[in-house]
Amino acid sequence: MTEPFSFALKVRDGAARTGAIAMPRGVIRTPAFMPVGTGATVKAMFPEDVAATGADIILGNTYHLMLRPGAERIAKLGGLHKFMHWEKPILTDSGGYQVMSLAKLRRITEAGVTFQSHLDGASIELTPERAIEVQCLLGSDIQMVLDECTPFPATRDEAKASLDLSMRWAERSKTAFATMSAPGQALFGIVQGSVYPDLREESARTLIDIGFPGYAVGGLAVGEGQEAMFDMVEVTAAFLPEDRPRYLMGVGTPEDMLGAIARGIDMFDCVMPTRAGRHGQAFTWQGRVNLRNARHAEDPSPLDPESACPAAQYERAYLHHLVKSGESLGGMLLTYANVQFYQELMARAREAIAEGRFAQFADDVRRRYRDGSEAGNAQD
Amino acid sequence: MTEPFSFALKVRDGAARTGAIAMPRGVIRTPAFMPVGTGATVKAMFPEDVAATGADIILGNTYHLMLRPGAERIAKLGGLHKFMHWEKPILTDSGGYQVMSLAKLRRITEAGVTFQSHLDGASIELTPERAIEVQCLLGSDIQMVLDECTPFPATRDEAKASLDLSMRWAERSKTAFATMSAPGQALFGIVQGSVYPDLREESARTLIDIGFPGYAVGGLAVGEGQEAMFDMVEVTAAFLPEDRPRYLMGVGTPEDMLGAIARGIDMFDCVMPTRAGRHGQAFTWQGRVNLRNARHAEDPSPLDPESACPAAQYERAYLHHLVKSGESLGGMLLTYANVQFYQELMARAREAIAEGRFAQFADDVRRRYRDGSEAGNAQD
Repeated sequence: MTEPFSFALKVRDGAARTGAIAMPRGVIRTPAFMPVGTGATVKAMFPEDVAATGADIILGNTYHLMLRPGAERIAKLGGLHKFMHWEKPILTDSGGYQVMSLAKLRRITEAGVTFQSHLDGASIELTPERAIEVQCLLGSDIQMVLDECTPFPATRDEAKASLDLSMRWAERSKTAFATMSAPGQALFGIVQGSVYPDLREESARTLIDIGFPGYAVGGLAVGEGQEAMFDMVEVTAAFLPEDRPRYLMGVGTPEDMLGAIARGIDMFDCVMPTRAGRHGQAFTWQGRVNLRNARHAEDPSPLDPESACPAAQYERAYLHHLVKSGESLGGMLLTYANVQFYQELMARAREAIAEGRFAQFADDVRRRYRDGSEAGNAQD
Repeated sequence: MTEPFSFALKVRDGAARTGAIAMPRGVIRTPAFMPVGTGATVKAMFPEDVAATGADIILGNTYHLMLRPGAERIAKLGGLHKFMHWEKPILTDSGGYQVMSLAKLRRITEAGVTFQSHLDGASIELTPERAIEVQCLLGSDIQMVLDECTPFPATRDEAKASLDLSMRWAERSKTAFATMSAPGQALFGIVQGSVYPDLREESARTLIDIGFPGYAVGGLAVGEGQEAMFDMVEVTAAFLPEDRPRYLMGVGTPEDMLGAIARGIDMFDCVMPTRAGRHGQAFTWQGRVNLRNARHAEDPSPLDPESACPAAQYERAYLHHLVKSGESLGGMLLTYANVQFYQELMARAREAIAEGRFAQFADDVRRRYRDGSEAGNAQD
């Protein structure tokens, strides 16, 4: 009998790893980057173009989808894959993070979190059980336990109390998943613990006792800075089983991801490539490019000659014009090029790990990004 | 030696005609619809998808392009075709219509029109000679004479004075074109005359005396109503040479175009399919569809099963969700489907004319649009 979810670790290069997750809907090559398809669409991209970038899996947001169009409606229409024309695996978050960042009048109790929809003010309760139910209605392949993304900064006591709640919710999530899920679906646990190494260890051990086919590192990229993030990734990864995929949630820049891969992370998601694309920013093999800059106005060179993406072959002068004119084609092309860059970055990282030269590869990309990126980019 | 511009009229069916314009960059099958690419982009569409809809030619707006990014800049970058990744023919208008509808502080004299840019307030003069110069800098294949689109309503005297100015400008345009244009480019004249049949006749005769390879009917679809428009098209077409293409500017709905084809028109342009698509409206073989309507929220049927467009295969429930959520993919898919519908409408019209059954075909489409269209569509 085929395993419905299996992770094969192929090569290690230091702490960096490359491998593959096999699932009924397809194989996810790791390290993997998951483009974010918040509202059942990777913004400004046709689904076939998302696939063409090399993405093996995308992420959907439970919070957004349960509010609009509603999980029950998506289930009635045949599930999220059919709804959004995406046949490969989908990972959904639990909704907890967006409740805290987007919803109004949030209240957390032992039972779960109640909040008002940011769309129409409706009062909604999200419990660990409901989060699993919604993800099962969506039909997502990799589901996440409901947790509290511990705010930053948090005192040790606050982080410990938050962590304890998340661990109890993780257990309830697993119980709910056991009765609700379909064959071939998987549930990941999420390590919390803020910036306290002993809490990270405690969280990892607790989750391992509960037992999950994969583990996420949560509560990072929330303002702690890159150094603290890398420290926590390193600390956490040390306590996670070698034979399970590790997912760093909500990260990040190319430099963030390279640093995390070097510390043993296998999966990422982030709105950065899509959001940046809609704002005139590009990620290229030559560094960050701000297409709003006047220096591109008469530049006939392609956005990124090193990329295989069709969108990256468009001339910078044209992209500059589109971005300055507010034409949606600008966002369409830059989003496409950015998502493909992220996929190419993962592909080259996998190759470098397989060939035992990941550190050198990461140094090279970091140098390109340090020396080649345009100033003023982050502020745009 | 090959003619750089030739129009072959193939079949007549009543006053309706089908044929082909042959130009160095490609053949334009008539009746033809030209998607509007105002700012060097058919809004929200990849250029290869515009080509995939079957469009043989697109329209660019001289007014917009001369202001941003500037005709000289586009010329420096290799011309509009290269700039916007469109290899097939491009028709550009003269800029006159947009000056009157978009610019501030317009002043018309014998020399031309001076106006303030709606973008930065810069004072700009557009003369017949400059309009041709700009179109030549863009490298457009079919260029239009500068004219005054006579406002509606206009008294006979107003219409006559406006017409006389346009005719003098037409002659100056032709003179300028003779010295500035490149081989393979063509200049069309524009018939004005408001709703006065004798002025339409006078305008047509004057332009024929000057001599152009194609003639446009201008100054319609400006509020005169469909019946008056059809009357003027019929009157004007009667005075235009059979062996030159006739272009009805800025028209229109499917019903408008069918009525105009029946009266001998060969070419159209209109923002309707693209603009409607960005506002959640679709043109289908079943009639107009307003994707905002709640009735589509759980409708799993495709937008238009009769269309060959990939975008028209998306489920109405999904399109409803995208439109309601303000997701740009909604506008991308509906624009694509609408532009393709317009092309399919032209393709079927050509076929029907070739087979001598155009009147029956037009009746069938009109019935579909009368019986199948959703209420409240126009207001959205």
